[in-house]
Amino acid sequence: MRIAVDLLGGDNAPDVVVDGALRACAADPAVHLLLVGPPAVAEAAVAAAPAATRDRLSVLPATRAVAMTDPATRGGRPETTVRAAVAAVAAGTADAVVSAGASGAIVTAAALGFGRLPGIRRPALAASLPAVAGPVVLLDVGGSLDCGPATLLWHAALGAAYAALVHDRDRPRVGLLSIGVEPGKGDRARRLADPALAAADLPRRARYVGLVEGHEVCDGSRADVVVTDGFTGNILLKGIEGAYAMAGAASTAPRAGALLGVRGTAVVCHGAAGPADVASGIALAATLYRRRVAQTLAAIVADRVEA
Amino acid sequence: MRIAVDLLGGDNAPDVVVDGALRACAADPAVHLLLVGPPAVAEAAVAAAPAATRDRLSVLPATRAVAMTDPATRGGRPETTVRAAVAAVAAGTADAVVSAGASGAIVTAAALGFGRLPGIRRPALAASLPAVAGPVVLLDVGGSLDCGPATLLWHAALGAAYAALVHDRDRPRVGLLSIGVEPGKGDRARRLADPALAAADLPRRARYVGLVEGHEVCDGSRADVVVTDGFTGNILLKGIEGAYAMAGAASTAPRAGALLGVRGTAVVCHGAAGPADVASGIALAATLYRRRVAQTLAAIVADRVEA
Repeated sequence: MRIAVDLLGGDNAPDVVVDGALRACAADPAVHLLLVGPPAVAEAAVAAAPAATRDRLSVLPATRAVAMTDPATRGGRPETTVRAAVAAVAAGTADAVVSAGASGAIVTAAALGFGRLPGIRRPALAASLPAVAGPVVLLDVGGSLDCGPATLLWHAALGAAYAALVHDRDRPRVGLLSIGVEPGKGDRARRLADPALAAADLPRRARYVGLVEGHEVCDGSRADVVVTDGFTGNILLKGIEGAYAMAGAASTAPRAGALLGVRGTAVVCHGAAGPADVASGIALAATLYRRRVAQTLAAIVADRVEA
Repeated sequence: MRIAVDLLGGDNAPDVVVDGALRACAADPAVHLLLVGPPAVAEAAVAAAPAATRDRLSVLPATRAVAMTDPATRGGRPETTVRAAVAAVAAGTADAVVSAGASGAIVTAAALGFGRLPGIRRPALAASLPAVAGPVVLLDVGGSLDCGPATLLWHAALGAAYAALVHDRDRPRVGLLSIGVEPGKGDRARRLADPALAAADLPRRARYVGLVEGHEVCDGSRADVVVTDGFTGNILLKGIEGAYAMAGAASTAPRAGALLGVRGTAVVCHGAAGPADVASGIALAATLYRRRVAQTLAAIVADRVEA
């Protein structure tokens, strides 16, 4: 399994990314890494690797970073590390891509390089938060802004399949994030999406449980998958993370998410990711590839578009 | 100071509300309560009160509750406890209203009974979250759904004044909640509101600090006032509360918010409020009344509409 790592993505790139990549490589002997970045950086990383992992590292030169202040469309430029990493996967040189860069740029690079699944206008970033009875999948956490009911329905289908494939959830419970649990609560998009979800046939025999509230993302009491737009989801995820930090608890919020709705495997790490976060992002990419998540989601979406 | 308490608002009404009301009355000898509810319930509450507080309790009969499943417009019906409590304040029989009922119903009742300030289409609920260097005011947490840049600008002005009046913040720092701190990050409403806020003249010499992220509501490092729409704010507030609960920390998230943008003093407690939460909501209403927050906000808004 070959994972392309964007060495220039993230607030503390490349050092933290290199550190995390070498950790991930050491932890999983099946993982080969394609280090995508300036040759000097990538070659120094190879030289720094222990002998046991060195022969599982290779280098793909690319020199341009996408800065947080750049527009997301910069992720479409072929000279950027994130676009080059996606291109390597699309060309079959690697099996998955991992980046801690600006999520908008990664979504752009992946949408262009992998292609979106039919019917999916906006891919979703899915994060798995630890809860009492296992992980809760929250999506979208940053891919789709200003999204309407049709996008929320796709998020529900992708999230349900993801919970089944990645977290072994049987008949996952799917909730729609809103400001109250009673039907009719919420903004316009939610009031339209709620009855549509209730009538929808979700994959993996998932059950729609109705509206859920912010705290239910943390406790997991009513839903295994929580569906929302990328604006609300991103803010909620960071707020939860901030609360854990304030409470003095080790952050149990995820620092990596999977990009769903494109024809390829992509993992986005938090921009402020540390080495352990980058390593867990690479491990997540390995899991997604092993479990054939991208292919299975593509088949599910194709079935639903044809139906 | 006379505070009208909606005995039928909240998941555990009337018992929890009565308990909280009697605690608040015992804690602050300047507080008189107008108990608004079914006569049998209100009279039993008076009978249960210690002799020292009993002469500071009076009763206003009203019999209908607004259920969480009712439309928000039900809060406009004169026979409901929340509308009767607002009417008592509007008529001068009480000075402030406190309810743990459905926030939409309270907003409706207050907008009708008090009237909205000129220019303000959607009043905002402001919650104060504890942070390292003092409270952070988050608004809106449930009053305004689907709101555009004009409403976000009003939230900023009201929130800045509130932070100065209630938390004694000198030159409060105002941030706009989004999914990144760089200009241009966010959905359509945020991309429009960000430059408008940068150009705005905020009250109390408040300073606009630009975009802030979810975790900054918890740590307070960059802003004393965080502006958002009521959908996102409500979900964020409940998510933070859920994270504190999961971390085993005593919930430090607020269980009561102030309704800003109407011609009167109204406090909304969390629907799942316990007696201590109701008591702190009554204490907040007393503070708002003592500090003449509603009148000062009305003067600020009138100045800005005329300017």
